[in-house]
Amino acid sequence: MIHKWSTNLIPFGTASDRFCPAGFRPVISTREKILRAKQIPGLDGVELHYPAMFEDMDPAQTKAFLAEQNLECSIVTPIMAADPAWGFGSLSNPDAGVRRDAIRRVTESMDAAVTLGAMQVNLWLGQDGFDYPFQVDYRSQWRNLVESVAECAAYNPDVRLCVEPKLKQPRTHSLLGTTSRVLLLIHDVGLENVGCLFDTGHALFSYENFAEQVVMLQEKGKLFHLHFNDNYGDWDWDMVVGSVHYMEFLEVLFWVRQTNYQGWYSLDQFPQREDPAKALALSISAIKQMERLLDRVDESVLQKALARHDYLTVQAAIETATGI
Amino acid sequence: MIHKWSTNLIPFGTASDRFCPAGFRPVISTREKILRAKQIPGLDGVELHYPAMFEDMDPAQTKAFLAEQNLECSIVTPIMAADPAWGFGSLSNPDAGVRRDAIRRVTESMDAAVTLGAMQVNLWLGQDGFDYPFQVDYRSQWRNLVESVAECAAYNPDVRLCVEPKLKQPRTHSLLGTTSRVLLLIHDVGLENVGCLFDTGHALFSYENFAEQVVMLQEKGKLFHLHFNDNYGDWDWDMVVGSVHYMEFLEVLFWVRQTNYQGWYSLDQFPQREDPAKALALSISAIKQMERLLDRVDESVLQKALARHDYLTVQAAIETATGI
Amino acid sequence: MIHKWSTNLIPFGTASDRFCPAGFRPVISTREKILRAKQIPGLDGVELHYPAMFEDMDPAQTKAFLAEQNLECSIVTPIMAADPAWGFGSLSNPDAGVRRDAIRRVTESMDAAVTLGAMQVNLWLGQDGFDYPFQVDYRSQWRNLVESVAECAAYNPDVRLCVEPKLKQPRTHSLLGTTSRVLLLIHDVGLENVGCLFDTGHALFSYENFAEQVVMLQEKGKLFHLHFNDNYGDWDWDMVVGSVHYMEFLEVLFWVRQTNYQGWYSLDQFPQREDPAKALALSISAIKQMERLLDRVDESVLQKALARHDYLTVQAAIETATGI
Amino acid sequence: MIHKWSTNLIPFGTASDRFCPAGFRPVISTREKILRAKQIPGLDGVELHYPAMFEDMDPAQTKAFLAEQNLECSIVTPIMAADPAWGFGSLSNPDAGVRRDAIRRVTESMDAAVTLGAMQVNLWLGQDGFDYPFQVDYRSQWRNLVESVAECAAYNPDVRLCVEPKLKQPRTHSLLGTTSRVLLLIHDVGLENVGCLFDTGHALFSYENFAEQVVMLQEKGKLFHLHFNDNYGDWDWDMVVGSVHYMEFLEVLFWVRQTNYQGWYSLDQFPQREDPAKALALSISAIKQMERLLDRVDESVLQKALARHDYLTVQAAIETATGI
Repeated sequence: MIHKWSTNLIPFGTASDRFCPAGFRPVISTREKILRAKQIPGLDGVELHYPAMFEDMDPAQTKAFLAEQNLECSIVTPIMAADPAWGFGSLSNPDAGVRRDAIRRVTESMDAAVTLGAMQVNLWLGQDGFDYPFQVDYRSQWRNLVESVAECAAYNPDVRLCVEPKLKQPRTHSLLGTTSRVLLLIHDVGLENVGCLFDTGHALFSYENFAEQVVMLQEKGKLFHLHFNDNYGDWDWDMVVGSVHYMEFLEVLFWVRQTNYQGWYSLDQFPQREDPAKALALSISAIKQMERLLDRVDESVLQKALARHDYLTVQAAIETATGI
Repeated sequence: MIHKWSTNLIPFGTASDRFCPAGFRPVISTREKILRAKQIPGLDGVELHYPAMFEDMDPAQTKAFLAEQNLECSIVTPIMAADPAWGFGSLSNPDAGVRRDAIRRVTESMDAAVTLGAMQVNLWLGQDGFDYPFQVDYRSQWRNLVESVAECAAYNPDVRLCVEPKLKQPRTHSLLGTTSRVLLLIHDVGLENVGCLFDTGHALFSYENFAEQVVMLQEKGKLFHLHFNDNYGDWDWDMVVGSVHYMEFLEVLFWVRQTNYQGWYSLDQFPQREDPAKALALSISAIKQMERLLDRVDESVLQKALARHDYLTVQAAIETATGI
Repeated sequence: MIHKWSTNLIPFGTASDRFCPAGFRPVISTREKILRAKQIPGLDGVELHYPAMFEDMDPAQTKAFLAEQNLECSIVTPIMAADPAWGFGSLSNPDAGVRRDAIRRVTESMDAAVTLGAMQVNLWLGQDGFDYPFQVDYRSQWRNLVESVAECAAYNPDVRLCVEPKLKQPRTHSLLGTTSRVLLLIHDVGLENVGCLFDTGHALFSYENFAEQVVMLQEKGKLFHLHFNDNYGDWDWDMVVGSVHYMEFLEVLFWVRQTNYQGWYSLDQFPQREDPAKALALSISAIKQMERLLDRVDESVLQKALARHDYLTVQAAIETATGI
Repeated sequence: MIHKWSTNLIPFGTASDRFCPAGFRPVISTREKILRAKQIPGLDGVELHYPAMFEDMDPAQTKAFLAEQNLECSIVTPIMAADPAWGFGSLSNPDAGVRRDAIRRVTESMDAAVTLGAMQVNLWLGQDGFDYPFQVDYRSQWRNLVESVAECAAYNPDVRLCVEPKLKQPRTHSLLGTTSRVLLLIHDVGLENVGCLFDTGHALFSYENFAEQVVMLQEKGKLFHLHFNDNYGDWDWDMVVGSVHYMEFLEVLFWVRQTNYQGWYSLDQFPQREDPAKALALSISAIKQMERLLDRVDESVLQKALARHDYLTVQAAIETATGI
């Protein structure tokens, strides 16, 4: 099965955080970031953040520049978490004016996604949630969210909204923490073009099994986009794939094929001290190696074992397949 | 607001576990357990496990015995996790025969609930899930679950099925880990008498905020039963309420009132080394004290603060209200 | 018992993080930060970061300015984590030149601590650790750390080095993650003026009980400084004291008294969306209220209960003492 | 490098737990357990629990029986957690009489270890700790522990005490939670024959890196015994090696060699629903395959990379070595 590879361009940014606000790398232009991403073997596309990445080139110019590099835009990501005025939420903010601004940013991103041919935007609502117990009215917060997402979705039914769950950070509790919660939102909104962006790292630190979540989404037709990265199961460290977990990545790749996922394979890493292009390339090669390994295993052996919950046979079959 | 207090009778059992299979207390009869629970000041009811607790007295006899003690049965809990033959699941087991047995246990429990006047059963499916990645076919597992629950629910629409999420244990991953996942099941089943049993301790170690989950359930009319206990946020330790967390319990009590919950307040603790009746009584008095504290706080102050996500005002108001 | 209250000045900074690099507040001078901290009722001192907070006023000038406000410097904190060149560690860096620079920063901070009369510095080594498994040579890393700390400690035996453990962040794994690990460092270094800064929040997300760690440190004479803040047990959220945990704070305050701790009570919070002075004041008033509550409980009742591991009596005694 | 393989015999027990007290397998004799363990390819020894496993055969008879099977006893494990009378601790119990009984069990186990030629016992003190905050006097608890361990160690300096840390379970907090805490105990006891049993699974859910802990122990000469098993980083699931983590196992095997560990490789798994011998054999073959993979990687490449904290080179070298 052929799929296309993408990455966001965050790894080529300064990689600043709370403790090292100066960052680990100098500021470079979007154009330069794209050129560096281009060095990653096999890359087909990039994720672009709106509006910050369109300051020098507008969406049409960006599309042309990407085409020169044989790249596409895989998804447009409206920046919903970087504005301190939206600190208590974007699409669910208690202030109607802030919600209005946030909706506008999403719809503008949808326009950009049309121009760029991506036809999908990433809704990660980092500021929508709460920090303390006894801080918010959960009823109005959820209703505001549902209404705002519905308004965005209705703006252009041809553009897919890929809602990305994340349990926490920057808020201690996100409004959309898990895949299941996103499915509840999708249900409450009730519009076809609302689906889910599944990020393996986010799932890991929600104690969600990748494959189970992917299958659950595919059964509902709602797996719109995939983010790959690894971590220790405790936090969104955005590490190289395969640096901590192995069997779970093998499994999700198996199920992505079984359920015939047609979308992008995209990377969302945060290499602060490593060479960005090298760190991203290593994730792609790790996944490709896992796919080759799966190709060596008799699928019917796996399916029979899964049908009787027989894990030992699965691990033994994979061990044998490595040939080591 | 008046609500009724209940507890399950697990604390009066042997309290055995993996490391101390002999347990910490001798085996006593259900009758004796009920008499000991009766010593807890203010207790109105007990939860009963089916079939183990009906060996000496059948449901009708049990109802009469309870009535003599001025007690009711708050809910009947079919034992779904104690049979090794159901180790790979009860209602979702890959074997149709096991599923059939499991459904029968639920429907018999529903009959008992009718006889006892409880009119609700607790569905906690401890063995339904998986231990390893790459162990099960998630598609058939979920479909089996949905079909089985639907069959149970259809058996008697007057008896409520209270599905209880728990992230893990005994399996490393439960099929119904979170409140959101239970809501997805409820949606897929599509029958009125399927709802949720919300256990504060289970929510804590899923990193779910109590109050948010309770409000979410109440907005859908699906909060059927409440279990109280405390833990450190990492595991289902089933501790005395208020021994670790405080503000979150205050908050959930506030929202339980705001959303006009009419069901039981029930305890689910596991005191292994403590006096059971004393440990349970302490949770009830802790909750009652929290309710008295809430009574002292001006509700409009809280609501105004919640409307603008202003936590500091909430904590200050509560601090003042204590009078300490 | 009388103790002095202090805070670091981080809450008066921009509160920027990875997702909101612009921060939530404007940049203000150290002088202005001190004046704002002065608004916190009962504050006796401030923690100062070296060298960033001495750009406008040198240590002597700062001391004079503090004196005008009736404030002291409680501790000087060399900034060890903000320089990208130290990304692979400061005092344990594999590069001898970087270690040399890092040692110089510590000794200069020690000089500043002498001038300011604080006589202690805070060693929190945020970059010393690793992100990936199979990334470092643990033998040389630890040896480098021990040698560097020994060199710092020997520089001026009258200034106390307060080593602060933290399990993770910014690195996925810190070299000094837990109180026990710091005690092992103290042992390996073998110099009197090396001790521990105990941060309640850091302990919480290492699953360390506050009081146990404080007692362990006091038994070795190594509790040099105390940081108060709260979180959910999963991450260093640096929240208002009492917003999540309660009993554990009561307990640590009991043991701080029992073991006759003579140092500062200092705050280390990170209010991004709240008013900083108000958030800090709330922690102080929460702790003072807990102390008043403890004063109401018969100490001999507690000690008898602790001697027989009888928790229920402790909770009941505290409940009664509240008078609610 | 040649090392000997061992396992404990828990997998051949009933595998009962809190929820399935009947267990998943029938009770069989120790003799039968040994015969089943013998089916595991390449096994050289077994761990034996004292006194439960010596009811039918005394230590001398057991040694003879083992010799017939070409097996050794790798370590004797006194059962410290199964007696409800020791529920508040064994060697640290507040009651001097209980401590006396617990010491006797350890010294009898030491005698058995001499007879069996194992010359080492496993001290895992599952009941020593606390469940609630504000439950114990930490000062006397630690002093009791140090004195008891010292008395045991002095009983026979030729038998090694292998103290095994575990963060929690069955108590919510263990007295000896981490490797560092065990090293502090070793220091306080001050006797040569006290060291550490390092269990990879226990380390994982303390957020300890295997290799770092192993190196730390080897630098002090205190790595006495090794337990292998895997889990999700949250709890002691005692799973098949390699079913979740991979790179960390590769790394610890690298460092075990580098530091010239001479002891046993032993398994501590808890297969409840899987065939025990098959589950254990799979862990051994997984580790052996990892060792073969490490043999294919140029050691100097790894060492150069580790010296400069260059993880990407390590992962790339391993990926290449697989040949997949």
